[in-house]
Amino acid sequence: MTDTTDKTEEQLNAEHNAKMAELKAKQDAEVAKRTERRGLTLVHTGDGKGKSTAAFGLALRAAGNGFRVCVVQFTKGSWKTGEGALLKTLPGVDHFIVGDGFTWNTQDRAGDIASAKAGWQVCVDAIEASRGPDPKYHLIVMDELNIILRYDYLPIEPVAEAVRNKPADLHLCITGRDAKPELIEVADTVTEFKKVKHAYDAGVKAMRGIEF
Amino acid sequence: MTDTTDKTEEQLNAEHNAKMAELKAKQDAEVAKRTERRGLTLVHTGDGKGKSTAAFGLALRAAGNGFRVCVVQFTKGSWKTGEGALLKTLPGVDHFIVGDGFTWNTQDRAGDIASAKAGWQVCVDAIEASRGPDPKYHLIVMDELNIILRYDYLPIEPVAEAVRNKPADLHLCITGRDAKPELIEVADTVTEFKKVKHAYDAGVKAMRGIEF
Repeated sequence: MTDTTDKTEEQLNAEHNAKMAELKAKQDAEVAKRTERRGLTLVHTGDGKGKSTAAFGLALRAAGNGFRVCVVQFTKGSWKTGEGALLKTLPGVDHFIVGDGFTWNTQDRAGDIASAKAGWQVCVDAIEASRGPDPKYHLIVMDELNIILRYDYLPIEPVAEAVRNKPADLHLCITGRDAKPELIEVADTVTEFKKVKHAYDAGVKAMRGIEF
Repeated sequence: MTDTTDKTEEQLNAEHNAKMAELKAKQDAEVAKRTERRGLTLVHTGDGKGKSTAAFGLALRAAGNGFRVCVVQFTKGSWKTGEGALLKTLPGVDHFIVGDGFTWNTQDRAGDIASAKAGWQVCVDAIEASRGPDPKYHLIVMDELNIILRYDYLPIEPVAEAVRNKPADLHLCITGRDAKPELIEVADTVTEFKKVKHAYDAGVKAMRGIEF
């Protein structure tokens, strides 16, 4: 990044330190401009690994900060027993598994739609219980909700509406590939997890403790 | 996704279930082809939110599965007290903070380089202690190592070499934006966390329990 050919370490250090002081002043000014405080809607989408893992990390971070957290899992697959058990040891975390698995495992569209609707109702109830001065939750994670929306098991409109009308301080985190444009529109922070390469494509099995 | 105009729910269900049975057979055949089992090197890079959060989730998942985990943090910033405290409650997790913060906070290139070298030595020792039949760790997380490499505080060659020569069953997870091509080359699974939108850009402060 720097032309290191003819400079002494002292020169490099001095140049770097001056540049970093400037960068810090710029950063501090940028940070000072951000004054709004409110609950955020985060979306983790894309075909890459880590969407649910990051949501799991977020739930733990929030719980570690004393937040009350609700995790609603629309598929059984993504958060395994080890993680569920860990979540349950934390005070203030509720964990609901409302889906039976990915749709190609169940091969039961009517059953999947019924689970999706029941699961969404759990989310709606959790959001509604988080209004007012003593909210039931500070963060609600809806894991793999995007998959449900993608298969049109639920219409997007009530979901976008719920996000728009959520309690101001409540944080939401919605995961799953193929997030609908209507959801991206109403979300605050959207990250696309993009696969650059994956061990699976090189013939490696999904590894316990890492992939699941 | 499906032409729903003229079909009954029964027809839609039957078509869907047949399609999903086919998809499941294909999936099962693909899964059966993956027979290799080994330790993976994961890289979380890109400008999006969640790289360290996903690594934190991964460390907890691994610990929840009974793995011994080492977390080496090259900057103080990304895993705050709440998370560190949570990690420490888990059996089999060691947590080292080897960096003082982002480089624009310290404005001390010589000090940053010294921290980077000392931090890398912690990683090398952890990797070496994980050889043989009784490995010290099953997963080593090197959080924000990419930042250190990006600023050339450490050369990439010994890092790429260490990844190539790691114990076969050991998992590594390296985070930070701007991962070097040499690292991507030797890694198994690389995810780019891409910012689609971010609350910060809309004037919202970084929120406790969510962003940090």
